[in-house]
Amino acid sequence: MVGGGQLARMTYQAAVGLGIRLRILAGSPDDSAVQVCPDVSVGDHTSLADLRDFAASCDVLTFDHEHVPSEHVAALEREGVCVRPGAQALAHAQDKLVMRQRLAALGLPCPRYSPVRTLDEVREFARPDGWPVVLKAVRGGYDGRGVWVCREPADAAGVLDAARERGIALIAEEHVRFRRELAALVARSPHGQGAAYPVVQTVQRDGICHEVFGPAPGLDGRGAAQIAELALTVAAKLGVTGLLAVELFDTPAGLLVNELAMRPHNSGHWTIEGARTSQFEQHLRAVFDLPLGTPRLAAPQVALANVFGTDGSGSPGDVFARYVHVMAADPGAKLHLYGKQPRPGRKIGHVTVPGTAGDDMAALRERARRAASYLGSGQEEDP
Amino acid sequence: MVGGGQLARMTYQAAVGLGIRLRILAGSPDDSAVQVCPDVSVGDHTSLADLRDFAASCDVLTFDHEHVPSEHVAALEREGVCVRPGAQALAHAQDKLVMRQRLAALGLPCPRYSPVRTLDEVREFARPDGWPVVLKAVRGGYDGRGVWVCREPADAAGVLDAARERGIALIAEEHVRFRRELAALVARSPHGQGAAYPVVQTVQRDGICHEVFGPAPGLDGRGAAQIAELALTVAAKLGVTGLLAVELFDTPAGLLVNELAMRPHNSGHWTIEGARTSQFEQHLRAVFDLPLGTPRLAAPQVALANVFGTDGSGSPGDVFARYVHVMAADPGAKLHLYGKQPRPGRKIGHVTVPGTAGDDMAALRERARRAASYLGSGQEEDP
Repeated sequence: MVGGGQLARMTYQAAVGLGIRLRILAGSPDDSAVQVCPDVSVGDHTSLADLRDFAASCDVLTFDHEHVPSEHVAALEREGVCVRPGAQALAHAQDKLVMRQRLAALGLPCPRYSPVRTLDEVREFARPDGWPVVLKAVRGGYDGRGVWVCREPADAAGVLDAARERGIALIAEEHVRFRRELAALVARSPHGQGAAYPVVQTVQRDGICHEVFGPAPGLDGRGAAQIAELALTVAAKLGVTGLLAVELFDTPAGLLVNELAMRPHNSGHWTIEGARTSQFEQHLRAVFDLPLGTPRLAAPQVALANVFGTDGSGSPGDVFARYVHVMAADPGAKLHLYGKQPRPGRKIGHVTVPGTAGDDMAALRERARRAASYLGSGQEEDP
Repeated sequence: MVGGGQLARMTYQAAVGLGIRLRILAGSPDDSAVQVCPDVSVGDHTSLADLRDFAASCDVLTFDHEHVPSEHVAALEREGVCVRPGAQALAHAQDKLVMRQRLAALGLPCPRYSPVRTLDEVREFARPDGWPVVLKAVRGGYDGRGVWVCREPADAAGVLDAARERGIALIAEEHVRFRRELAALVARSPHGQGAAYPVVQTVQRDGICHEVFGPAPGLDGRGAAQIAELALTVAAKLGVTGLLAVELFDTPAGLLVNELAMRPHNSGHWTIEGARTSQFEQHLRAVFDLPLGTPRLAAPQVALANVFGTDGSGSPGDVFARYVHVMAADPGAKLHLYGKQPRPGRKIGHVTVPGTAGDDMAALRERARRAASYLGSGQEEDP
């Protein structure tokens, strides 16, 4: 697995259970997954030489992020490396313009979009719906980085200037007024087997996932099946191998695809306790072309809240010292810490609260938020 | 954790989730847990010097087996090492005579027993109930080793001779005609908090656990509560910190305590998928004196079968090659492989099948057995 973040760390946990040797190419010896895995190469994921060296010792190459240059992925494939997902599929998770064009060609619902280079083009784009307009870096964004909500032309001018300086291509997208955000997670194997997890609802702030809960309230069987079919269609048409997370806007006019990711995804961490096959195990099964595990719920309802570093976090040891309070307050909360140095706004863990069929979702969410907030800040209330 | 077997390996998986650094003292660089944990010392668990060196780098010392000499455990405690469970509690899991005497003094139901040194003493012991008589090594036995069912005096004579030669002390126990075997798993923290898992039924052959399923069929709430209370009493009276597994004979005349273990136990592997807090996480919480997690069921029913090496196992790679069949046949079966070289009769993994409330337990057991058998032997049927 290229990348040593928390996704690699949790994938590693699944690999241990299956007796699969997961080797990690990490950017730094301090990375989250490096702390827990004995089989690590430290190298640069933007260096073809480093990638090639690493790949030589692996049966299958996969990723914990989208930042490996697509030309390197393609080069490795040409050299005979088994890369899953492959360069052609991965391009749709790396390049927002490629993704939009492809989804539009497939007739799948997307926000209105257009590549833009000048302020005039942005003004032109804004004409039908007015401002705000969303500008996005075509490549390299994640967790809200590379996404700018521009309330007026002056905002857009600033983004355009900065992007031009750094050689970043942009697209404009309509600013969607959604009722809520949903996430669909599916897996697809090279054999073409697919598996779809129950659809969940997410709560994002500034483009960063704060909460996940599911199954998405108020979604009937038909609605859930349509979303699953949409995600499985994207996976099949794009030739995805491994996981595909589809982030969706639920709008009064219907669903729109927001983002794609082809790896374990924050919106799927709930599957560790909440599904019979965790997304991490599923990704391993898929990239090894093993039969997929059942995505069925293991808990009838589940709520998850991310733990963020704050000014009051202190060291990882200080966070650990808060376990006693969180565990005493809620023996059913499942804590996941990533071994990351807390910094304000940095995701350092998550808390999952699996519930029963009779639980009130608002109460489950409250329990998850409370535990996550206290772990991150030492404060009971969300700061 | 002293010991690098599969219990340490699975405890390590739980430690990764909690962000706890688990360091392992392993006997060999090939040990199951060594393959997956980057923080390993290789040393001799019977050497006080090795134990002392290892303990110097740990906040808490715990065990994946009972084979650390009790005088060493006591010496470490005197030197200020935080050892959990402590020497005094641990003695009851290391020395069957100490255990029997203590449980008898507590008025807890045990098979009739007596220390024996001569054939005359065994004959005398056999008088009330007749043969067979069970002879057990007072120390050092596990997985059926150190236990001999003697059908007649000649068998006992042979065991006595061999034990005398190797300086092994023996006890005789009545040969219990049980209806079935049960296992109770509890955790106790230094604070004195206790948590009891639902009681499960086990199937042993030659003293080796082959199957676990639960909740134990036909056990009503009152019966289950009595067993939980018994196990919690043992944990409290013996001053256990960490897990305590109590193996029980269910006989027409009532329950009898068979064995005790103070560590994660094979009869509790089902908790990984089957309980909201796995026994491995629970052991970590307990030995760190953190509040215990809920032991509630995560699946209404669960069946587990151990995977054994056979003449037909081949290499670990051959076992892995069988994943495709097992996973295709049963997407709900959870496979756990320990990275151990298959040898006939050696436990190399286990399969858990979590079920729903409506599932037939016999069918769940059949699914677990089938998957485990095929993984171990490449044969559909149990050899």
